[in-house]
Amino acid sequence: MFPAFLDLASLKAAYAGGLTPLDLVEEVLARIAAAADPAIFITKTPADDLRTAARDLLARAPEANSLPLWGVPFAVKDNIDVSGLPTTAACPAFLYHPTEDATVVARLKAAGALVIGKTNLDQFATGLNGTRSPYGAPRSVFDSAYVSGGSSSGSAVAVASGLASFALGTDTAGSGRVPAAFNNLVGIKPTPGLVPNVGVVPACRSVDVVTVFAGTVGDGVAVRKVMDGYDAADPFSTPAKPTTLPASGLRIGVLAGAEREFFGNAAYEALYDAAIEKAKALGAEIVPFDYAPFRQAAELLYNGPWVAERLAAVKDFLASNPDDFDPTVRTIISGATHYDAVAAFEGLYRLEALRQKTRAEWAGLDMLMLPTAPTTYTVEAMLADPIARNGHFGRYTNFANLFGYAAIAIPAGFDAEGHLPAGVTLFGPAFSDDALAPFADTLHRALAVGMGREKTVALPEASKVAEPEDGLVPIVVVGAHLTGMPLNHELTGPGGRLVKTCRTAADYRLFVLPNTTPPKPGLIRTPGFAGPGLAVEVWKVTPGAFGRFVQNIPAPLGIGKVTLDDNTQVSGFLCEAHAVDGAREITELGGWRAYIDTLKKQG
Amino acid sequence: MFPAFLDLASLKAAYAGGLTPLDLVEEVLARIAAAADPAIFITKTPADDLRTAARDLLARAPEANSLPLWGVPFAVKDNIDVSGLPTTAACPAFLYHPTEDATVVARLKAAGALVIGKTNLDQFATGLNGTRSPYGAPRSVFDSAYVSGGSSSGSAVAVASGLASFALGTDTAGSGRVPAAFNNLVGIKPTPGLVPNVGVVPACRSVDVVTVFAGTVGDGVAVRKVMDGYDAADPFSTPAKPTTLPASGLRIGVLAGAEREFFGNAAYEALYDAAIEKAKALGAEIVPFDYAPFRQAAELLYNGPWVAERLAAVKDFLASNPDDFDPTVRTIISGATHYDAVAAFEGLYRLEALRQKTRAEWAGLDMLMLPTAPTTYTVEAMLADPIARNGHFGRYTNFANLFGYAAIAIPAGFDAEGHLPAGVTLFGPAFSDDALAPFADTLHRALAVGMGREKTVALPEASKVAEPEDGLVPIVVVGAHLTGMPLNHELTGPGGRLVKTCRTAADYRLFVLPNTTPPKPGLIRTPGFAGPGLAVEVWKVTPGAFGRFVQNIPAPLGIGKVTLDDNTQVSGFLCEAHAVDGAREITELGGWRAYIDTLKKQG
Repeated sequence: MFPAFLDLASLKAAYAGGLTPLDLVEEVLARIAAAADPAIFITKTPADDLRTAARDLLARAPEANSLPLWGVPFAVKDNIDVSGLPTTAACPAFLYHPTEDATVVARLKAAGALVIGKTNLDQFATGLNGTRSPYGAPRSVFDSAYVSGGSSSGSAVAVASGLASFALGTDTAGSGRVPAAFNNLVGIKPTPGLVPNVGVVPACRSVDVVTVFAGTVGDGVAVRKVMDGYDAADPFSTPAKPTTLPASGLRIGVLAGAEREFFGNAAYEALYDAAIEKAKALGAEIVPFDYAPFRQAAELLYNGPWVAERLAAVKDFLASNPDDFDPTVRTIISGATHYDAVAAFEGLYRLEALRQKTRAEWAGLDMLMLPTAPTTYTVEAMLADPIARNGHFGRYTNFANLFGYAAIAIPAGFDAEGHLPAGVTLFGPAFSDDALAPFADTLHRALAVGMGREKTVALPEASKVAEPEDGLVPIVVVGAHLTGMPLNHELTGPGGRLVKTCRTAADYRLFVLPNTTPPKPGLIRTPGFAGPGLAVEVWKVTPGAFGRFVQNIPAPLGIGKVTLDDNTQVSGFLCEAHAVDGAREITELGGWRAYIDTLKKQG
Repeated sequence: MFPAFLDLASLKAAYAGGLTPLDLVEEVLARIAAAADPAIFITKTPADDLRTAARDLLARAPEANSLPLWGVPFAVKDNIDVSGLPTTAACPAFLYHPTEDATVVARLKAAGALVIGKTNLDQFATGLNGTRSPYGAPRSVFDSAYVSGGSSSGSAVAVASGLASFALGTDTAGSGRVPAAFNNLVGIKPTPGLVPNVGVVPACRSVDVVTVFAGTVGDGVAVRKVMDGYDAADPFSTPAKPTTLPASGLRIGVLAGAEREFFGNAAYEALYDAAIEKAKALGAEIVPFDYAPFRQAAELLYNGPWVAERLAAVKDFLASNPDDFDPTVRTIISGATHYDAVAAFEGLYRLEALRQKTRAEWAGLDMLMLPTAPTTYTVEAMLADPIARNGHFGRYTNFANLFGYAAIAIPAGFDAEGHLPAGVTLFGPAFSDDALAPFADTLHRALAVGMGREKTVALPEASKVAEPEDGLVPIVVVGAHLTGMPLNHELTGPGGRLVKTCRTAADYRLFVLPNTTPPKPGLIRTPGFAGPGLAVEVWKVTPGAFGRFVQNIPAPLGIGKVTLDDNTQVSGFLCEAHAVDGAREITELGGWRAYIDTLKKQG
């Protein structure tokens, strides 16, 4: 039995239990045939091709789960090339037959994943709502009156409906996030440049990003890692420079004051507030910040010269086939002809001026948490006012790629009736893609909202994102480096922090080193000796600070391994034996601080 | 007596010897009055204002040399605001009276420097030759028939003539470098964004940089450091992220094959080759590389949409005052009206595609060394073909700011007749500004070409740029980490390198530690013991690698200080004394390798 929601961990378990990709293919074909929404796909992979792909996989990698995405079904937004399937960008007249996979598709196939079809989208990825397609409007999996969100509409619905384990979207304004919110999914939006765009129909080439829809943050990140990697054939691809975030005490920026805008949707506002409360309960520091410069940048994307990038992408086709465009999409793209190069550079100046304002906001923040979309609409309402209401969806998304941020959209629960879901998105600086994931996953799990259409399913433990390694080195100090002692600044200066106070194992002895300034002890291990154990502190510092710290220690002291009273071995101060010949032993005092106290009393 | 060339070290010495800024002001006024070239300045600081500034400095900081630029005279290109002096950008009708100093000028004044006047330039900084100004064409200080280079023409001539210690230029295409080459000066071109542009008339805002002309690299860098620092009021200002370059074994990219183009100037080609030979003699590895992608990017600056930035900067003024422009400058800037926003973004795509090609070239290089300008021309020849011949000057400069590089232009000597000078420029990645300086200074000194008009003056030792600290940590290894031994990879893996092979001091003893895998020795110091000294190796690793290395050392070993046979103390392996109780002593073998050899013979 395959699970209703095909998350990676559950699928892996099914394969480990004896099911095969051939079984999976039949299951997926049956689910596609039974799917209620007729607008999900533009092109389905022919059944026999899908069966052949599964057989080929078994021939190449016979052992179950022997590749990172062994037999994992995925859907591909139809502006991303898959060899053997046409690419339309939701414009039938634009259709072409790619002979090569997009780089990301090739990498996913190499990892064992199986393409089940090409999904519907807002034409040329121009929209955030999912209604701008001649192939129909996919619907929210929770209410077919409502939009699915876009532009990656079909991809989100395919995953939320249990047809695929994950799906690829693209995200320029927010197309990889808004449909995640409306379908109770995770949307992974990588830092622009992290995932190559070779074989992707451009929307705005300088800010387009391929995204992943998945059931859990762990699944989405695992898929993204398969797609990652510099590709010189993409002008905007950049070698990754991962950044870290604090392992605890995250400062999360949230909307405040007049910047809180939900277009009358009180349910969505309540869900945003509930997510903030949950984040706080998980230990985050909640910091209201000024969203204004982010909003002003967001407005540049459609109401500024960047729309000329959309024109650049299709200008020849627009000239030859103006009537083949969705009317709203044509209106938007044609608007770009008003912008000259001066306006383009002036837009750039404006963006950079706004970026300076955002630096001041970021100074006190580690990440932002915003509503993914502030409201939702029925298909009917959207079609009645397609540009303004689409704009509402982009209120908290459009700035992200202009500023080069990483983002992860997670579900934030359902309205009071349990009817329609909302989402929140966590944003971090460029290349914080991995660093955002642990908290995003923890928050998603704490909200307990299931995956996609399966609102009550538990998130598998196996897909949990590991807490980040802090990368710090522990060090045991015994004398002049203890808290309050003269050399403690050598630990606090480079940002070290106290982890715990404890004692060494019983077989250590402590001596007063002669002729040291400031006074220092020597710690010597004597196996078999049964003493009280010496009072020590364990600190943590970065490897670089640790290296410089060790480098600055004078003879006869050094850093070796000290065994603590819990029998763990931790780097810490040792002393050359010759230096304690004839030195005063103070083991019986139980530690250096007690010895210093006796000196003070004498003084 | 003030020196003929007013470099910082010589001026400081003059002040230390009893001269004062009041004396300096009179000297500078006399030199300006006697200057042969009437086109250097657009506005001179009135004599009494300059005297007042010197008196104010003495009141504020009475002690000689008590500020970083105490009483240092400098000239300012007339597209940079100085409060109290008009700004013209070499266009009389554009003249305005700034009420505030540009940020860089304010910082220099605060450091004690004195503005002597505003210098001539190619109008709106549009040119590389110095003839495009209604205020006349400054001339090469070596032959008044020849151009000075531009656009920062007057600034370079002022410094080369001994009127100022340094001068500010601006550099979009190469305006801070070409005039340095033609006047035997150093030109410091910071990474775009490092030095704020607030108060600077834009040329191409996204790629404009304020530069320094000086007699030595040390002087130029010292001035640049006063100007450095993030300023949120400049949209393109960025917090510095310094990068390093190797302390030795620099790989320097040089022109090769068809990309070597000197427009028939054999003397300049010979000077470029001589500079390459000199760099090689100084220990650099000379690596021919493919300049084509850099050249193709360079061509975008004037023959691409970036010229629209020049139009953006002056479009209202061009509309109202078309006849007030230099005709060549008007032709260039008006050309930008042909570019629409699509073309602007397509230019950006082209630039990024070329950047990807340059990454492949940079993979084997630490810096580039190119001719600053491939040839020079007389004023008459320049005026006869002003656009094409100006373009020749930019052949090896125009790409630098588009790609965000740091650059330092240095003099490369004179033609065979000792008549006209040429220059070479060293380019490094963004924020390698400081890292480029030591080699640039060393090469400049090795070429021994004087400073400015003073072709035979020695470069003061005091302005020498210190060799960079390599920041590496030395570590003494004695056993399993020696070259060829089983754990040597723990040093070579993170990029460690062998510094030397030597012996410890005589009072160390070596033991075979029981039950260690791989076999390891224990090194113990016994003061007074007179042994042979033990053979050891000294390696160097980064502090981070050192920290991780220490962290991975198991008990009973640790890292303390080992005294070597030259009596230096270096971090290295020590052993807890209890571990060698009853262990076999091998001190008499002189080292671990000798012991391992005996095992092999036994085997």
